[in-house]
Amino acid sequence: MLTNPRADRVRAVSALRKRSVRQRTGRFGVEGPQGVREVVRYAADRVRDVYVTPEAAVRYDADIVVPARAAGLWVHEVSPEVLAAMADAEAPQGVLAVVDVAEPTLDDVLAAAPRLLVLLTNVRDPGNAGTVIRGADAAGADAVLVSESSVDVLSPKVVRSTAGSLFHLPVVTGLDTDATLAALSAAGVRTYAADGAGATLLPDADLAVAHCWVMGNEAWGLPAETRERCDDVVRVPIHGRAESLNLAMAATICLYASASVQRSGPTAR
Amino acid sequence: MLTNPRADRVRAVSALRKRSVRQRTGRFGVEGPQGVREVVRYAADRVRDVYVTPEAAVRYDADIVVPARAAGLWVHEVSPEVLAAMADAEAPQGVLAVVDVAEPTLDDVLAAAPRLLVLLTNVRDPGNAGTVIRGADAAGADAVLVSESSVDVLSPKVVRSTAGSLFHLPVVTGLDTDATLAALSAAGVRTYAADGAGATLLPDADLAVAHCWVMGNEAWGLPAETRERCDDVVRVPIHGRAESLNLAMAATICLYASASVQRSGPTAR
Repeated sequence: MLTNPRADRVRAVSALRKRSVRQRTGRFGVEGPQGVREVVRYAADRVRDVYVTPEAAVRYDADIVVPARAAGLWVHEVSPEVLAAMADAEAPQGVLAVVDVAEPTLDDVLAAAPRLLVLLTNVRDPGNAGTVIRGADAAGADAVLVSESSVDVLSPKVVRSTAGSLFHLPVVTGLDTDATLAALSAAGVRTYAADGAGATLLPDADLAVAHCWVMGNEAWGLPAETRERCDDVVRVPIHGRAESLNLAMAATICLYASASVQRSGPTAR
Repeated sequence: MLTNPRADRVRAVSALRKRSVRQRTGRFGVEGPQGVREVVRYAADRVRDVYVTPEAAVRYDADIVVPARAAGLWVHEVSPEVLAAMADAEAPQGVLAVVDVAEPTLDDVLAAAPRLLVLLTNVRDPGNAGTVIRGADAAGADAVLVSESSVDVLSPKVVRSTAGSLFHLPVVTGLDTDATLAALSAAGVRTYAADGAGATLLPDADLAVAHCWVMGNEAWGLPAETRERCDDVVRVPIHGRAESLNLAMAATICLYASASVQRSGPTAR
């Protein structure tokens, strides 16, 4: 059992909290049982090491330890002090994995003939980004696209707030917004800017075709140039007196509206 | 201009951050321009005092200062140090109001023949509670009901996260869950537990009738007794691999589904 919080290996894991270190090493940390369970289940080939405290090894034996060992992964027991030194979260619940960065490309995503996508441009809040990834997963979207000007989706806070969804669908990062909109159009995917200033109400948008929701910044929305490059600008109806919905709520409502139309059969499910 | 952060008046405002003081005085603080603007606009009769820094007085002159004075309210200039001492937020953006607690009752709400309600039982996270109130407002719900075991909706964090929606629709607090479910049924309002274990999928629920969404705790959901007391248990479909949606997202999707059905005309808007 690893018990020295100042060991080189502990420092190396802890350093993954920094974006520069993640970029240099091509690895990132996943903290907490939900994320670790999902990465072991859906992306075991990317997991380098799993660290568990003795207590967590018992609690998550069936959920994490057994499946991880069955997948041929290294599961290391560490003291609670070592796990705390490795983790960003105050309460990582005794489990942490070091995972290779996946690098799906926009070409990969488009080659799979996607029906439903979401593009985050300039999204800065980790919780918002993570919640949109989770909502996109729940709505059955084919992938999440993230512009280079957005928050790093491999930061501990985003990884946590995706609740494991980061390992359920491709998340393409570092994209140029304009080039991405052009590539989507060329691939026959319509682009819908989600914006309170949109002329088209969500129930009137054509959601049966393959499309990508384009989301702007939490505070200032989408710049006019981006809205103009999109095929339509769509707004979620506000029925009460609220000025707007927050970004994650608006994205989730749009994605669920799309799923509801795309997955409806003759009985209008 | 009030410049002494240790003045009695400053301490009295600052003390409103404590639930016990809010309960004793029947007042609470609203921080930041969005909340203050909305309370001045929609509930000016409940505003006791508005405090602004000189900089904020200029910036929010048309939005807050002029409407507040037109409504006969006291607008006091205070130094930035005084505002910081009064406020809970790190960046209250120069504006704070002290507001009388409203006490709408469940009877008031039911007397208005509501079509769409949401009941929060055991919701503990301030951001979740605030986001649901904002989503209920946007979806045009008639009121939000909050059980006695939930977070205090007048705490600074909840007030902030409602983004002003707290003043847009009645929010009834301190309710007993079982008694509330009984009162809703007696008033002809159907009760739908939103729960991942529900047998009815959201698109199959009868949303045309008057109904109330019943939301449980963030982590453990609704107890079986509560689910059984409801007329139906409804789940939001999960199309991808996500285990669940978070509470605020699930509530917003349910409320928007209801609004979409209740507000649809012959053209299925």
